[in-house]
Amino acid sequence: MNITRPSGRAPDQMRQVRIERGFTRHAEGSVLVCFGDTRVLCTASVDNKVPAFLRGKGEGWVTAEYGMLPRATHSRSDREAARGKQGGRTLEIQRLIGRALRACVDRSALGERTITLDCDVLQADGGTRTAAITGAYVALVDAVRWLRKRGEITRDPVFGAVAAVSVGIWRGVPVLDLDYAEDAGCDTDMNVVMNDGGGFIELQGTAEGHAFRRDELDALLGLAEGGIATLLQHQRDALAR
Amino acid sequence: MNITRPSGRAPDQMRQVRIERGFTRHAEGSVLVCFGDTRVLCTASVDNKVPAFLRGKGEGWVTAEYGMLPRATHSRSDREAARGKQGGRTLEIQRLIGRALRACVDRSALGERTITLDCDVLQADGGTRTAAITGAYVALVDAVRWLRKRGEITRDPVFGAVAAVSVGIWRGVPVLDLDYAEDAGCDTDMNVVMNDGGGFIELQGTAEGHAFRRDELDALLGLAEGGIATLLQHQRDALAR
Amino acid sequence: MNITRPSGRAPDQMRQVRIERGFTRHAEGSVLVCFGDTRVLCTASVDNKVPAFLRGKGEGWVTAEYGMLPRATHSRSDREAARGKQGGRTLEIQRLIGRALRACVDRSALGERTITLDCDVLQADGGTRTAAITGAYVALVDAVRWLRKRGEITRDPVFGAVAAVSVGIWRGVPVLDLDYAEDAGCDTDMNVVMNDGGGFIELQGTAEGHAFRRDELDALLGLAEGGIATLLQHQRDALAR
Amino acid sequence: MNITRPSGRAPDQMRQVRIERGFTRHAEGSVLVCFGDTRVLCTASVDNKVPAFLRGKGEGWVTAEYGMLPRATHSRSDREAARGKQGGRTLEIQRLIGRALRACVDRSALGERTITLDCDVLQADGGTRTAAITGAYVALVDAVRWLRKRGEITRDPVFGAVAAVSVGIWRGVPVLDLDYAEDAGCDTDMNVVMNDGGGFIELQGTAEGHAFRRDELDALLGLAEGGIATLLQHQRDALAR
Amino acid sequence: MNITRPSGRAPDQMRQVRIERGFTRHAEGSVLVCFGDTRVLCTASVDNKVPAFLRGKGEGWVTAEYGMLPRATHSRSDREAARGKQGGRTLEIQRLIGRALRACVDRSALGERTITLDCDVLQADGGTRTAAITGAYVALVDAVRWLRKRGEITRDPVFGAVAAVSVGIWRGVPVLDLDYAEDAGCDTDMNVVMNDGGGFIELQGTAEGHAFRRDELDALLGLAEGGIATLLQHQRDALAR
Amino acid sequence: MNITRPSGRAPDQMRQVRIERGFTRHAEGSVLVCFGDTRVLCTASVDNKVPAFLRGKGEGWVTAEYGMLPRATHSRSDREAARGKQGGRTLEIQRLIGRALRACVDRSALGERTITLDCDVLQADGGTRTAAITGAYVALVDAVRWLRKRGEITRDPVFGAVAAVSVGIWRGVPVLDLDYAEDAGCDTDMNVVMNDGGGFIELQGTAEGHAFRRDELDALLGLAEGGIATLLQHQRDALAR
Repeated sequence: MNITRPSGRAPDQMRQVRIERGFTRHAEGSVLVCFGDTRVLCTASVDNKVPAFLRGKGEGWVTAEYGMLPRATHSRSDREAARGKQGGRTLEIQRLIGRALRACVDRSALGERTITLDCDVLQADGGTRTAAITGAYVALVDAVRWLRKRGEITRDPVFGAVAAVSVGIWRGVPVLDLDYAEDAGCDTDMNVVMNDGGGFIELQGTAEGHAFRRDELDALLGLAEGGIATLLQHQRDALAR
Repeated sequence: MNITRPSGRAPDQMRQVRIERGFTRHAEGSVLVCFGDTRVLCTASVDNKVPAFLRGKGEGWVTAEYGMLPRATHSRSDREAARGKQGGRTLEIQRLIGRALRACVDRSALGERTITLDCDVLQADGGTRTAAITGAYVALVDAVRWLRKRGEITRDPVFGAVAAVSVGIWRGVPVLDLDYAEDAGCDTDMNVVMNDGGGFIELQGTAEGHAFRRDELDALLGLAEGGIATLLQHQRDALAR
Repeated sequence: MNITRPSGRAPDQMRQVRIERGFTRHAEGSVLVCFGDTRVLCTASVDNKVPAFLRGKGEGWVTAEYGMLPRATHSRSDREAARGKQGGRTLEIQRLIGRALRACVDRSALGERTITLDCDVLQADGGTRTAAITGAYVALVDAVRWLRKRGEITRDPVFGAVAAVSVGIWRGVPVLDLDYAEDAGCDTDMNVVMNDGGGFIELQGTAEGHAFRRDELDALLGLAEGGIATLLQHQRDALAR
Repeated sequence: MNITRPSGRAPDQMRQVRIERGFTRHAEGSVLVCFGDTRVLCTASVDNKVPAFLRGKGEGWVTAEYGMLPRATHSRSDREAARGKQGGRTLEIQRLIGRALRACVDRSALGERTITLDCDVLQADGGTRTAAITGAYVALVDAVRWLRKRGEITRDPVFGAVAAVSVGIWRGVPVLDLDYAEDAGCDTDMNVVMNDGGGFIELQGTAEGHAFRRDELDALLGLAEGGIATLLQHQRDALAR
Repeated sequence: MNITRPSGRAPDQMRQVRIERGFTRHAEGSVLVCFGDTRVLCTASVDNKVPAFLRGKGEGWVTAEYGMLPRATHSRSDREAARGKQGGRTLEIQRLIGRALRACVDRSALGERTITLDCDVLQADGGTRTAAITGAYVALVDAVRWLRKRGEITRDPVFGAVAAVSVGIWRGVPVLDLDYAEDAGCDTDMNVVMNDGGGFIELQGTAEGHAFRRDELDALLGLAEGGIATLLQHQRDALAR
Repeated sequence: MNITRPSGRAPDQMRQVRIERGFTRHAEGSVLVCFGDTRVLCTASVDNKVPAFLRGKGEGWVTAEYGMLPRATHSRSDREAARGKQGGRTLEIQRLIGRALRACVDRSALGERTITLDCDVLQADGGTRTAAITGAYVALVDAVRWLRKRGEITRDPVFGAVAAVSVGIWRGVPVLDLDYAEDAGCDTDMNVVMNDGGGFIELQGTAEGHAFRRDELDALLGLAEGGIATLLQHQRDALAR
């Protein structure tokens, strides 16, 4: 089929991806990840404590927090700190990021430590949560390397890799990696988190307009698999630099 | 394959479903829905106002709130009103319920009205969000019937029907409608919301243990389709009484 | 004098009372109490901890929380969890329930345990706090029986019984057990908590319209004594089943 | 019977009462009321607005807020503004003060105005809520006089007078106007609000130790009537100065 | 130059200062300080604990909280406890008071104790923060004397004295100790905290209208030095009584 | 005198300053300002509304919000949005930034518009508030240029320029532009906001260790004047690019 996406990209074409390590200097891992105009700063912070429910069990914890600078978006949104609470969307996204990253961590190998992944959106243009997961993975690996270099852990707690991408149905055509304009115009929007073994970690699909059929779902999953492969390669390249 | 689920049910067997209309008397729709030992009270309340972002557009709104009585669960959990905020899980679930129900409502036909679906869990045994969606649909229809009987709306704003069920992989076997014991032991847990045209409204799958493969996903979706068909029949029967 | 109460009841006539034990299955005590159309679910939860101010003193604690489902009432009220705090009325009622129940408990015999009585109003038609106290007493006894059956305590910490009823002056006539319509039209409204020895535990009378005189107070207390006797019998019957 | 109260007072003896008008200069009414060592600053503030539920009805509103300076008490208590919410006790007391004062106000004569009575405890030694009601009445009258002097209202919206006192049973003996030491040692504690016609506005009795009998209640009410008479005279004297 | 300040005072003339010790009886130090019509109650409370970040270091802590009664001002302001948070101005002032007082305390000599200075404004007419610092110093000394009398500390942790005053430029003329009317009309407003050695503890100057020049700053500091000398003498006199 | 500052800089030497306009693309003004390793993103957002207290007066408003990413600092600090409120330090800084910027704006020329300056610290190494003021000025000018280009305003509301720098006394020597290590070791710390006419907008000096004398203050102000001159030149250069 012949469509022109708002972005002019082919249906199966990702935006330009950039992963920049060491973006800030205090964090044990600090990554700026860009999916086109979406830019998310992901930092990994190591703390030698675990939440109360894990104390004394010899296991570590990986968790995430998500935020958006007030003017990361087209029009300014209220600062959550000023409003006095995190909104439902924020909580939902940071729970997702945390689950996704825990899926590639052996928490016994981490020991009684918490790694917190702060994902702060500097500029938003759709797909902030998928960019956050993809970048947070690299920050996590850097934090783990820092721990290993200091001899604090011996076994690598990270197994495999995790990346995420969005797919959707834009004017009837399944497309990969939605930017803001495409996301707003999509009937169906799905976020897919996968590992480097081709397994699904998380799948969240929502029919915004009409319900989607099984064959549409299959097409979306196919696109996502291609996008994830590209992202995993970007992660490997960044970590090899 | 030959497994015994904790519940003793066959892999594709739903728990006993009960949908009781008119459970309380003040609400325009009031439904007690039971999936086995999970019992959720779903009320639909009509308000002749819409949120600020819709004012003057001639459209209505459908939204949901979710709550759990402190001792609906095995051990008592803090009352969210006393803690001073709704947790991330609560916000995530009530956003899901709202999206699911809006998927079967023509908001222009509703006019400038809000229907709020309050889903309060009296007793929890797994699957509270899927029971809530399934019951809230019936409460919504009752509220719409109430509006029509009073002549406040002429066109039926509800098209089709919506129901939800959970599926998961328990010891390697895809199973339908997880209760609490099964949910806790599952590797993968997926909530599926569908309409009566066989379309997907929402799909939320999470790999708690190992990542799930494409063929496992297919099996889970097949089970969900069967469960949804059963639930839609229960809804029709309840609404016909 | 000859009046017709909105409910058609005689001035000294209680609504139909129903006390149903074991209403939900997780709590150590779970009671649905109905005063006419007022329905309150009272659960008793045992926790092997006490608040900080009691730690190490060998005494237990009994406390209560009160909530109202958003659509328990004629028009929907905001969910306190969503508003981010419990209102003054809620706090006042749950403090009253807690004090009332502690009046029949020997806290040394309870040991360092807390019993929390959650009173959640499923449907409101006046007198929710008096129904809550009356039902919570039964839930409390069930929780104590559970503790004794497990051999965790040897001496019965509950002495006597506690019940509560409202009285008021409706169009000049003292009446017993106000429903919502009567409560709204009453000049004076009084909640009376008594034990089975005929002693007063708590007395809260408010003149909504004109101030009440000493002889009116006496008449109200007489009615309350009769109502309490009926309620205590309902409690005994329920606990004997 | 022969007892020595901690204060050395006779059972029916009030503490020294002092009512000082014009204590601060900005408020329309400003009264320092002292019941012995209990000192409460009561200010009345006039605002030409009413709460939303009264707008356009031609009626006024009278409401109260209560606070305690952190070190008004023996040991410092947390500042409620710093904790981020008013406690249950505070809300309960300020609701009581508001109800009590509204009982002597003709809200139509007040017009669409709100009078807010702020009762702030500078020093606490028992009976802060009864002192607050007694002093707030005087501040209210001063605010109404201020309105009348400016010709903003013509008819006096205050009818009669309202005062409050506590009574209790100390070592078996009914006593009047409990100070902190007596309050802490009392079996029963009752707050009584009356008007100058001898009518009851509010009655709040709590059995802290053993339940109280009808004859004890009668004795307490007799003591309260005497105390209220004294307080009403103090109010009249203050207002005549 | 020849101006008439709203207050009629000479440019270098302070308002009448009054420092009254023992204003309330529970606190270890309790001081009412008046700068003209500004009246602040400063209490010092001793607690045998320190905040978490100091535990086990053998050092004490001095901190402050600031509040304003709702009707301390010309028009009533919302109660911070009711609004659910302390405003930015309140936090800023209480941080300033705490820093100012810590500047004259040897925290090792204090031992692991916290002294909390509660500064509550009963009546406001400009300069509440400077009055608070000046009065809190006296309350602090009283609390330390109380500790020494009980033999809990041997070495005096307070060295020197601290006082504060405001200065400003009113219609082009530098003036001392601004009252509310002057403060509202000032181009520049500066709060100066000094010790009795003539050293500056804190300097906070703000140009409300036009920016101030170096020579204006010098004139303001000169005025402040004079005012501080007066205040230090008032403190000494009060502490000698 | 001969000292070696931790940074190795001369006492009157600023860190390397960088001002990068157009750092993000949605905001009307978007500036990344760096003082050495301190990096603050300052965005200016235009809104065609003013706060309630200014409505209908024909004047605009300029306000600021300040935030710090959780891992902008050496160790991770809690996210204010998650804690549910902005701390005292945050409120104090954002109030300062707002006042400083309003000092160079003619609010009538702005018309009924609000410009919000969001200053978010990406990386902190001392002096975040002075960098924020310096960068926010440039973002403000860009937002005003945007308004003028669209013809929404005709007269330039910004007069002059505003910049800020910190000074302090490090081991007895007055030094300019403290980084984190120097700030932590300083006896006195002063933030100075000035305009391009050499006038002071704001002066905030705090003696952390010993009190500072008048001659030390003079030396600090001299250093600040030099630093401000440098910063004003950087602003001009950036705006000319």
